[in-house]
Amino acid sequence: MGRNERGVPRQEDDFSAWYNEVVAKAGLVDRGPAKGTMVIRPYGYRIWELLQAELDGKIKELGHENAYFPMLIPENYFNREAEHVEGFNPELAVVTHAGGKELAEPLVIRPTSETVIGDMMAKWITSHRDLPLRLNQWANVVRWELRSRMLLRTNEFLWQEAHSAYVEKSDALRETLLALDIYTALARDMAAIPVVPGEKTAGERFAGALNTYTIEAMMRDGKALQSATTHYLGDNFARAFNIRYTTAEEQQAFVHTTSFGLSTRLVGAIVMVHGDDKGLVLPPRVAPYQVVIVPITSGNKASEVEHAAADLARRLQAAGVRTHVDARPQLTPGWKYNDWELHGVPIRLELGPRDIDAGTTVMVKRIGEKVKQPITIAAAPTEIPSVLDEFQCDLLQRATQFRDDHTALVDNWDAFTTTIATGWALALHCGNQECEDNIKAETTATPRCIPQHGAPATGRCIRCYAPSAYDKRVVFARAY
Amino acid sequence: MGRNERGVPRQEDDFSAWYNEVVAKAGLVDRGPAKGTMVIRPYGYRIWELLQAELDGKIKELGHENAYFPMLIPENYFNREAEHVEGFNPELAVVTHAGGKELAEPLVIRPTSETVIGDMMAKWITSHRDLPLRLNQWANVVRWELRSRMLLRTNEFLWQEAHSAYVEKSDALRETLLALDIYTALARDMAAIPVVPGEKTAGERFAGALNTYTIEAMMRDGKALQSATTHYLGDNFARAFNIRYTTAEEQQAFVHTTSFGLSTRLVGAIVMVHGDDKGLVLPPRVAPYQVVIVPITSGNKASEVEHAAADLARRLQAAGVRTHVDARPQLTPGWKYNDWELHGVPIRLELGPRDIDAGTTVMVKRIGEKVKQPITIAAAPTEIPSVLDEFQCDLLQRATQFRDDHTALVDNWDAFTTTIATGWALALHCGNQECEDNIKAETTATPRCIPQHGAPATGRCIRCYAPSAYDKRVVFARAY
Repeated sequence: MGRNERGVPRQEDDFSAWYNEVVAKAGLVDRGPAKGTMVIRPYGYRIWELLQAELDGKIKELGHENAYFPMLIPENYFNREAEHVEGFNPELAVVTHAGGKELAEPLVIRPTSETVIGDMMAKWITSHRDLPLRLNQWANVVRWELRSRMLLRTNEFLWQEAHSAYVEKSDALRETLLALDIYTALARDMAAIPVVPGEKTAGERFAGALNTYTIEAMMRDGKALQSATTHYLGDNFARAFNIRYTTAEEQQAFVHTTSFGLSTRLVGAIVMVHGDDKGLVLPPRVAPYQVVIVPITSGNKASEVEHAAADLARRLQAAGVRTHVDARPQLTPGWKYNDWELHGVPIRLELGPRDIDAGTTVMVKRIGEKVKQPITIAAAPTEIPSVLDEFQCDLLQRATQFRDDHTALVDNWDAFTTTIATGWALALHCGNQECEDNIKAETTATPRCIPQHGAPATGRCIRCYAPSAYDKRVVFARAY
Repeated sequence: MGRNERGVPRQEDDFSAWYNEVVAKAGLVDRGPAKGTMVIRPYGYRIWELLQAELDGKIKELGHENAYFPMLIPENYFNREAEHVEGFNPELAVVTHAGGKELAEPLVIRPTSETVIGDMMAKWITSHRDLPLRLNQWANVVRWELRSRMLLRTNEFLWQEAHSAYVEKSDALRETLLALDIYTALARDMAAIPVVPGEKTAGERFAGALNTYTIEAMMRDGKALQSATTHYLGDNFARAFNIRYTTAEEQQAFVHTTSFGLSTRLVGAIVMVHGDDKGLVLPPRVAPYQVVIVPITSGNKASEVEHAAADLARRLQAAGVRTHVDARPQLTPGWKYNDWELHGVPIRLELGPRDIDAGTTVMVKRIGEKVKQPITIAAAPTEIPSVLDEFQCDLLQRATQFRDDHTALVDNWDAFTTTIATGWALALHCGNQECEDNIKAETTATPRCIPQHGAPATGRCIRCYAPSAYDKRVVFARAY
């Protein structure tokens, strides 16, 4: 099996092994001491911080206020909403002892916070004037999984979870779609991922939701990754936790609630959508370093080069470019080039004595055409921001092209099985749960979503030939 | 017992009851469903976010990178450092079941992360070139306490914990002092709290530390609140977790580690340092709303007033002032005045039809002299920022005056017991643990710190008359 200079397997040989090695060797994550747990290292956490800052602003614009709810929730709270308990019970981590004693009632570590937030909403909401109530929290959650994969599925992960309560069903539903728009834009504009937004089929809904919407991203192995979800919960949680208000007409009524969340999983999506055999490829808008300068300091002009590199870095930083100088004396320039390619840095600047004499630096882009070209040092701070913008666009275009090349309309079972081996199938479906289960059992493919922007289409189910149910084709794919 | 318009007791009648009611009624926090847990509501969380944003920048300037470590830690990790286990064992919350099964080894919810971070440092550090390693995380921690008090002592709280490893002891020690400077400045410049920085005596050190530094704040009942701490851990954790590196001379050596943390407790300190019988008093730099405009809309000019209020709010916001318009139609202006006083908003602007005709608005400051004065609407966006700056200074001065008025040099036991009933005693002490314990048993006062800027002083111990140990006076106080 081929491996690159850093010992990373090639994607086409073993995509899964490639992923596991890249996220570790690029310093995004590490395994924690307890089974299935993850350390997010500074290089990975910085990507998350950049996503967070953007998303936090958008959620606040939507009218949500940040808050924080307790992580430990009485076990009985999970038994109050019938579907919720069924969905989450197998994944709960339970605290039975604390402060040296056995607890009278075990406490569950939140796998999600609908229950505890529902309980507090019941306390805070009394009148229609208290609505809408829109809350968001940035928090860790724990879901005990049999198998883990760094960033995609770990026993603990970080996310944002928003929870709202409305008088009107229509307003609650509107919010789930506005949140879906925010997620779609975040994936597109920050992560350069052309996700497909759409609604989940009944079998794939969040436990307790009436409608679940998702953004689905295509990885470079053709699989889908659910990258964020939004839910309309109807009055299920309102009834379970007695979240009622007095209407303007002095009647008692239950609120309509929603929730929506996006997690550190999106960092894993960025790796699997853009990475290549050399390692990560990071979209500039989420790259911890957008530019790395490698000074070539062999020879007697070492200090002059170091000085010029530091000077250029300062000028780039002043122009708003996240820039790092790799001044490690013990490593060769060649080693550093490979290292920063592994780390997915969009632009590398090579700077040696002859470059300085010529007033230029060699700019090397991580992907694309004319990847290597000299630019003048003087003009770098004005030119590089537009090179980064182009790079961001190129990545999105490349990912869009890849997604479209690996998505096919299929109208017979053979075409379906062939297509989902390497990509996504757009197929008609009867909407029957048993038929979904059959497809999954035979192919491991599941309905990822009923795409928001899918063209109208009706006909016969791809599997059972019953009449199609959704008035459009469903995205089927194998998924993480 | 006297109560204000919102039913809050007076401070002098029952400071503790005043605190409990104010933090709840001002919407900072609420009790969570599980014993001793806390919900941080949006109004309280916003204060934390403002502190966070400032502190995060300062910690990054110090050279730390943010990361995230698993919350669940194998139980045996806590047994590796002798003092650490003794200090934290009584407070641990333990997960024994997960995913429907009993775990082979119980997992502890982090009360602090020295152990898991130590374990990862051992993996990441091999050479002196990997040092210093400076990490920080924003996280929740769980410490099971018998008695809880919102924001000050709850079973779960939020904090920032930084952890570093150094080659040189001197560099590690320097960092603990730089971090102490950052905390001192944060408390002073953001929270308007004139904390006293200093070193803890041996009996008050963090479990596993060789040196612990603290910032101590004086509450309005004269008690002290430890508001953040920094620790030099020597090679205790390096030995316990085998954090070694190869020196430039190819020798193996243990690193010197540090840690420092500041929590949501600081929000509680702000309440107890500045609040009064009307409720909270918030320093402008941490106030969610720096200005609240109350439109007086009775009569036939209601829409004109609402329009003017919205317009003024926009202009203040454009000038960088966090401004809110209280447009609730069901409440009277008088009710709103009390409400925003309870919420501690620094400046209220009252705006009625006659004010608009005169081109003025009535500015009411939450504390100080000339609290009520008209200002011209046109000039408000230029004038109010300096009024807020003055307000911030006034609060710091008032708190400094209070602290100094309630701090006394004491040289005999009677003066000591009298002083610590209402404030802080600066006293000589022998440094003997048994003597500290005696003082605590008799008075509940403990040595809060050996103040960094204390004047040199030697003599006899205030309690046992043995020679004094620290070359300066120690701050003794009752504490939260």
